[in-house]
Amino acid sequence: MKIVLLGSGNVANHFALRFDQLGYQIVQVYSRHKANAQALALRFNAIATDDLNTVDPLADLYVIAVSDEAIPEVAVHLSNDINGIVVHTSGATDLSILQAFMHSGVLYPVQSISKNIETDFTQIPIGVEASSTSTMESLWKIAKALSHRAFECNSKQRMALHVSAVIVNNFSNILYQLSYEMMQDNNLSFELLLPIIQETAKKVQNKPPIDGQTGPAIRNDNITINKHLNFLRENPPLQTIYQQLTLEIAKRRDK
Amino acid sequence: MKIVLLGSGNVANHFALRFDQLGYQIVQVYSRHKANAQALALRFNAIATDDLNTVDPLADLYVIAVSDEAIPEVAVHLSNDINGIVVHTSGATDLSILQAFMHSGVLYPVQSISKNIETDFTQIPIGVEASSTSTMESLWKIAKALSHRAFECNSKQRMALHVSAVIVNNFSNILYQLSYEMMQDNNLSFELLLPIIQETAKKVQNKPPIDGQTGPAIRNDNITINKHLNFLRENPPLQTIYQQLTLEIAKRRDK
Repeated sequence: MKIVLLGSGNVANHFALRFDQLGYQIVQVYSRHKANAQALALRFNAIATDDLNTVDPLADLYVIAVSDEAIPEVAVHLSNDINGIVVHTSGATDLSILQAFMHSGVLYPVQSISKNIETDFTQIPIGVEASSTSTMESLWKIAKALSHRAFECNSKQRMALHVSAVIVNNFSNILYQLSYEMMQDNNLSFELLLPIIQETAKKVQNKPPIDGQTGPAIRNDNITINKHLNFLRENPPLQTIYQQLTLEIAKRRDK
Repeated sequence: MKIVLLGSGNVANHFALRFDQLGYQIVQVYSRHKANAQALALRFNAIATDDLNTVDPLADLYVIAVSDEAIPEVAVHLSNDINGIVVHTSGATDLSILQAFMHSGVLYPVQSISKNIETDFTQIPIGVEASSTSTMESLWKIAKALSHRAFECNSKQRMALHVSAVIVNNFSNILYQLSYEMMQDNNLSFELLLPIIQETAKKVQNKPPIDGQTGPAIRNDNITINKHLNFLRENPPLQTIYQQLTLEIAKRRDK
């Protein structure tokens, strides 16, 4: 299995590491910035390039792991004569962006991948989509090798999943940050909230989130809600967020 | 150490269990509903009552663990002649609500306590406030026995902490639920999001949340943001929440 990696960021790094573990051969790494391509290529004895015209046309798999906005440019400049499977790794990009290629697909890792945090790739759910049944067969084998949690999903499902991942990951994290700042402003250690953060994430591992909902909104405890809104009066954006999320909880109160 | 518990809900239950572990004697349990008082009292050989006039005046500690809106009523009907320490367990209620008593204070457990989930009480941070230095001395000993994570905090800090706990717990949980519903609507298993939920909660255990922020908002990736907003066009409340949390992330982008 010969692989060309297009991209040199977090996602490209983690794919490279996992491909290497599987004994797949990374033959080439492309990046707009030659130095970045070289840094990654060196670790796997691959060739580095910053010129899409020099991409090896004989690999089995081309993994486009660049930022979403850079995918069209890479796709346009990559030779259409490629016979291998061309995939991107984006959650929010339609498969049709790769329609110029004979065989195309998606390998979407549903995880917040950070460069310097070790990630067990085999535990990351990988959403797989392919342009044809035969391409799906080939891609499915690769996906199953990469991760124990590969699953098929179409572009619309992938978008729903991507939005959901942003909500549970990026948006939970900014809520943590808003609390972090409020704790700091009141000379309180954020550590006090760490058990409750862990507990909240743990509770939903076994049951629907709403079944574990606690707090003033689900209790219809308007006295407390008003005390909180009053406390937040000097932070109007947070006050608004408080009101809207409280409303969403309230809507589900009597179901 | 003789204790009277006023309340029979989740918090009262968990305090009772922990007091019993410590060898403290629960002499009486009060609840508006006699049957509830009896259910809890039975387990600890305590007397049950639904009449505040019959509360034992000779206990060392009175723990008011009722809903926030019921605290004033309990406080008003409890005899002012009590010489023991009267505490409430609320995050959002000022200590001054207990000013009629000689010795008063707060034992606020910073945790989402659910009746049927086993909780290691010793790991729950307990915010301690007291009406005087001498009361603080007594209460501090009790708090340190209850939990390894007791800490002093005044009423304003406690309110900040309570709001923060609502944000990281109740609001993260409703975000999980909004995602749960979106996943269901698209025939996707919520299980796919469980690793990312765990990972997000885990990342903030060691560093400020903003340092681990990922996603389109922190990348200033407006293409993806607009795709998401378009995807959410049939769910205006969620679209609004998406915009506001994205804005909060964006504000912190260049810091």
